[in-house]
This record gives sequence, C-alpha cells and structure tokens, in this order.
Amino acid sequence: MNKKKLNIKALIIRQSVTLDCGQIIKDFPIAYETYGILNKNKNNAILACHALTGDQFVSNINPITNKEGWWSHAVGPNKAIDTNKYFVICANVLGGCMGSYGPTEINPINNKLFGTDFPIITIKDMVKVQKLLLDHLGIKKLLSVVGGSMGGMQVLQFTSLYPDMAHSAIPIACSASHSAQNIALNELGRQAIMADPNWKKEGQRPDKGLAVARMAAHITYLSKQGLQEKFGRKLQDKGSLKFSFDADFQIESYLRYQGANFVDRFDANSYLYITRAMDYFDLEKQFDGKLSNAFKNTKSKFCIISFSSDWLYPTVENKEIVIALNSCGMNVGFVEINTDKGHDSFLLEVPEFLKTLRDFISSAFSEVSNEKRI
Amino acid sequence: MNKKKLNIKALIIRQSVTLDCGQIIKDFPIAYETYGILNKNKNNAILACHALTGDQFVSNINPITNKEGWWSHAVGPNKAIDTNKYFVICANVLGGCMGSYGPTEINPINNKLFGTDFPIITIKDMVKVQKLLLDHLGIKKLLSVVGGSMGGMQVLQFTSLYPDMAHSAIPIACSASHSAQNIALNELGRQAIMADPNWKKEGQRPDKGLAVARMAAHITYLSKQGLQEKFGRKLQDKGSLKFSFDADFQIESYLRYQGANFVDRFDANSYLYITRAMDYFDLEKQFDGKLSNAFKNTKSKFCIISFSSDWLYPTVENKEIVIALNSCGMNVGFVEINTDKGHDSFLLEVPEFLKTLRDFISSAFSEVSNEKRI
Repeated sequence: MNKKKLNIKALIIRQSVTLDCGQIIKDFPIAYETYGILNKNKNNAILACHALTGDQFVSNINPITNKEGWWSHAVGPNKAIDTNKYFVICANVLGGCMGSYGPTEINPINNKLFGTDFPIITIKDMVKVQKLLLDHLGIKKLLSVVGGSMGGMQVLQFTSLYPDMAHSAIPIACSASHSAQNIALNELGRQAIMADPNWKKEGQRPDKGLAVARMAAHITYLSKQGLQEKFGRKLQDKGSLKFSFDADFQIESYLRYQGANFVDRFDANSYLYITRAMDYFDLEKQFDGKLSNAFKNTKSKFCIISFSSDWLYPTVENKEIVIALNSCGMNVGFVEINTDKGHDSFLLEVPEFLKTLRDFISSAFSEVSNEKRI
Repeated sequence: MNKKKLNIKALIIRQSVTLDCGQIIKDFPIAYETYGILNKNKNNAILACHALTGDQFVSNINPITNKEGWWSHAVGPNKAIDTNKYFVICANVLGGCMGSYGPTEINPINNKLFGTDFPIITIKDMVKVQKLLLDHLGIKKLLSVVGGSMGGMQVLQFTSLYPDMAHSAIPIACSASHSAQNIALNELGRQAIMADPNWKKEGQRPDKGLAVARMAAHITYLSKQGLQEKFGRKLQDKGSLKFSFDADFQIESYLRYQGANFVDRFDANSYLYITRAMDYFDLEKQFDGKLSNAFKNTKSKFCIISFSSDWLYPTVENKEIVIALNSCGMNVGFVEINTDKGHDSFLLEVPEFLKTLRDFISSAFSEVSNEKRI
C-alpha cells in the first residue's frame, strides 16, 4: 500500500481542528482529487462527498485499485457533472483509509498505526475538514455540494454549518439522522469485524469479519425486487443442487465475491469509524429537535433525490428533509427516481437520475454566471 | 447439555428414510412433545411445525432453556390453539439441535459428533420424518397442520406430499420458495459462522460467528417502523454519546444481547443445515415449475396468513400461494394482519392473528366433529 500511496495527493492541514469528541487534531493529511479547471470567476467549483466505502477518486481510473472511480459515469468531460464546465473536488473523508487522517495513519505519539486509538469522528468533523481544503484551494463559494448516502449527510451538514458557502446542494438517498434499522445494520457490520480474532492484532487484518460486514451491507444496497430479477434462484453450476455448503446459488457467489474483493481495498477500522459517524449523525438533535432550524440561515437552493426501491434511505426519509426545508421557506426541489436498483442507484447509470443531476447543476451554473459575483 | 437431554423425549425411527441428497438414514431419534389429549375419534390432532430456531417445546416452560416455549401464548388451555380441545404435536426438525437427528448427534461411523459430516437435509426430509412420528402416534388424519416461517414451508410441503392427511392447513408468513434476498440473508449468516476460526475445531464452538448470524437474522424479523418506534435513536445511558465503539444506542445493546443469548441454546452447524434447507425449498420446482400442481390432489382447506410489515416473507409472496391454491379450485382463505411487528408477528401476541388462528381451527374442528370419521 505504501508504495501505491505515492499516487495519493494530500494537503497537510496545519490548523487545529476541535473534533466533536473533544480531541484536537492538527498537522494531519487530507487526501483529495480535483477534476476540471477552476474558472477565473471561481464560480464553477463542485464539492463531491463520497459515501461509506468511497474515496477521493471520483472519476477516471482509481490508481490504487486500478478500477474506474466510483462516479466515473457521472463525473467527467460531457458527463452529467461535466468537467469541461465544472471544477470538481473530492476529499477522502476524515477517518478514511485512502490517505486522509484515519486509523491507517501513524499515531505521532507512539509511531504506530492508530488503529482504534484514532479518535471517534463525526460527519460534522468530516465537513469541517473539507471546508479547510476549500479554503486552501481559494474557493469562497461552491457552485454545488453533492453526495449520496453518507455523502448526502455531508451535504446537509455542510449547508447547515456554512450557510453562505454553497449556491446549490444535492443530497441524494440519505436522511437527516440514522434510523434504528440503519444503526442496527451498521452495528451488525461492526460486530462482524470485532468478532474476528485478527481484529486489533498487530500485523493482522480481520479480513473475514470485514468481508461479512461488506456482504451484509451489500444486501441492503440492492432492492428485493432487483435481486430477484437479477439472481432469482439461478444456480451457479446450472446443473442440480450440490447438497453442500458451497455456493449453490449465483447470489451466494456474488456475495462472496463482494466480500472477498472489498477487503483488498478497505481498512476494517476505517469501516468502524465511518459507520459510527453515520450512526451519530443527527441534524435534528444538533438543532434542539427541530430539523428546519438546521437550514434557517442557509442560502443554498436544494435538489433532494431519492430512489423508489431504496429501503435503506427510503423516500419517506428524504422527504422529511424536503418538509423541513419547505417549512423555512427554502428553495427546494424533490425528485423520486423510479428504479428497482435500490440504494445503489446513486452509483449506477440510472438515466433519469443522471439527467436530473445534469439539469439542476446546469441551471445553477446559469444563475451564478448571470450574477456579477456569487 | 447431555444431562439436560434427560428432559428430551425422542422416538427412534427404525425405518429407512431416503433423503433428497441420496443418503439413507435409519435408527435415528426424533425429539417431540405433545400437549393435550388425543380424543377417542383421533380427530383433534394438530401438527405444529417450528421455524428456523424453534424446537419441540411449543408451550409451557422449555426444560432446556427454562424459558417459555416459543408459542406458549398461542398454544395451551383456552389459548388460540386450545389444548383442552386439541392434541398438539411438535417435533424438533431433522437437522435440529434439540434431540432430533442432526449435527450435534453422534455419527455411528466414527463415534464422533456429526458436525458438518451430517447429510444436507431439505424441508421434504423434515416432513417425511414428521409423518413417521404421526404414524407412530397412530394418527391417520390431522385436524390441522400449522406453522410460521420455515414452519409454514413444512405445512406447504406436508399438504403436497400427503394430500389426504390434513383436514386443514395454516401456512403463516412464508413462501413457496426462497427469494434471492432471503437466500442472500441466510448465506450472510452462514458466512458469519464459517468465518469464525472455531468453526469445525474439535471441542470449540463458533459462538462469535453464530452471534453475528443471529443479529443479522434478528434485524430481518422486525420491521423498520417497529424498530423505529421501539428504539429510535434512544441512548443506552440516557446521557450523551460515548464516542467509542461500546453500545451507545439501545438498539445496539438489544442486538448484542440477542446474539449472545442465542449461542447458549443453539448449535452453529444446525443453523447452517436448517438455513440450507430453507434456501433449497422450492415447491414450484418440485412440480415442474407450476406451483398449483403441488396442491392438485390436496384435500386440505387452507388459511394463509401474512403480516403487513413482514419484509422477509412479504404479503405478495404469501399471496402467490393463495393464487396457486385458487387456480386449482382449492378451499382457501387469506388474511393479511395489519401490524408493525414484522415477520416476528407470528411469534408475538398479535390479537387479530391469534383470533384468526382460533376461529379457523375451531371451525375446522366443528366440521370434522360433524363427520362420522375424518
């Protein structure tokens, strides 16, 4: 990994940042990528926020995994988020494992890997650090801040914390606080990791536990109907049942592959930290139980996008954000995309979704281009 | 466990049984319990079929766990299934771990515990063995065969395999074949067990893996709405967040408890075998792709019961059984119980459900009582 890390660009944050847990961090790296060119007016910058297992490599080939970036089909020249027009920034979140400060980095106190000695971080902590990166890049105002799932939580937190900072905001397939079921599902993943005897053993990795966590999560990313249509009861070896515990059904092989593949690119402790941040996220609680208060000073115009078959962040939870924004007179649009692809839709080529993204951002850019300055 | 097993009553099946996998078993134990008294006409017998983690101790205190039986509130004197009127039989399924032939029994070939040397079993195998138990008890015709979840699969298989044997049948919260999502969820549980390094180690138990499997399953037994209402984001220690990986939220403690508690009463290999049997169940495939053929000779009258918030075996899957029964002119009733308690509803005190059970069985008993013989 270390050699590969040569491909990772990082900013060293010199300021002190006080985390929600009370700890203060400073002189730490935030890995990031940019796509496209910041224009002269500096009004074409878009901050993309990644989800739980994403990273800063939004587009093109990810140099670490050698696979397409997680949003390559949405971000690039002439894509929905057109890098011929816009300047796209994405940072690996605080607590991540792709070069940003997190459990895979060295603890300066003892010169060992942090592991679970890393402080617990929150969505707010992640967003504060992203703001410092924007400051470093000389960006005073974003054209848009966009993200799905945990990325959407960051969008909500960002617009709440920096109400003047984004002309528009696109929270996708997310909620303003984690439901009990989502906390339960994340806890399941954490327990799978912590049950692995290799967890917290120096020089060992809890790969089996992390693979189980990934399998659990993966099931939640797809819809029941989507799974049925794609896999149904199709057998792996077309013939008859094997009468064993080998993978008989295609869905079993697929899940095993998802689990095995994931451990090569992700750190188990990062998984613990980031899921914890998601569970802790509660924008309503930050504002004394009234979600609309989170946005009362926000100047951004919003486009909320949900997916009809997403049972992890169902439309009803996305709508709660719309209702809160409406109740304080905000400029908010809402689109539910009809698809059987479940929560994963925000990472897939779903044409209606990509068109919504393209059109909303394009119209926002027309607005700021017609202003003298944004 | 062995000393406790003194409380377990078992029939030794002397006949040969050819399993679906091709192996032949004979001289093996089937543990069972009965409640109430078989009447002179022998027309008041009800076979109750248990679910994945159930056992033969339907009612009263389970002598092994010292807790109430899994259906104590539904089966007993004056209960919905009234043991003052009916004779209720329940067998621990083949492959189970409560005294029936399964991976926790001794393999006569090497005098060691079977473990994963036990043959793969199917729902059909389970049902064949239950029929042998009924023969032993001198029961030629059942008043009813009833069960929820995997118990419901056994009901469907029973009425298909022994079309003259049950006057009535009550499959609850089940389906005629496992969906891709349900196979995926079972595979997740199996992978959690198989990831535990103690699995297949002599004298060791993969308790941590089994606990994770149970946590995963438990989430699926409850509805999103039910979890939200019961737990929401309530904290374990009322105060503020702990900023650690301890259980902060009540839902986390609850899940951990469910996991830890389960391993004391269940065998990990039994969990593998029984989930496999559920995944293999495909009544449609047994009848050349036409589910209605499964029932074309069946004489039973049916009452299909589903629960509105059950996402594991949603109403739509229960209705497929109704449609198949209708299409061959069967006598079939269908009730969807409105509840937020999810799949678990069939194990809970849901009054409308219990009333449905009581009334249907009572009417069936009136019918057979008015016949000279059933």
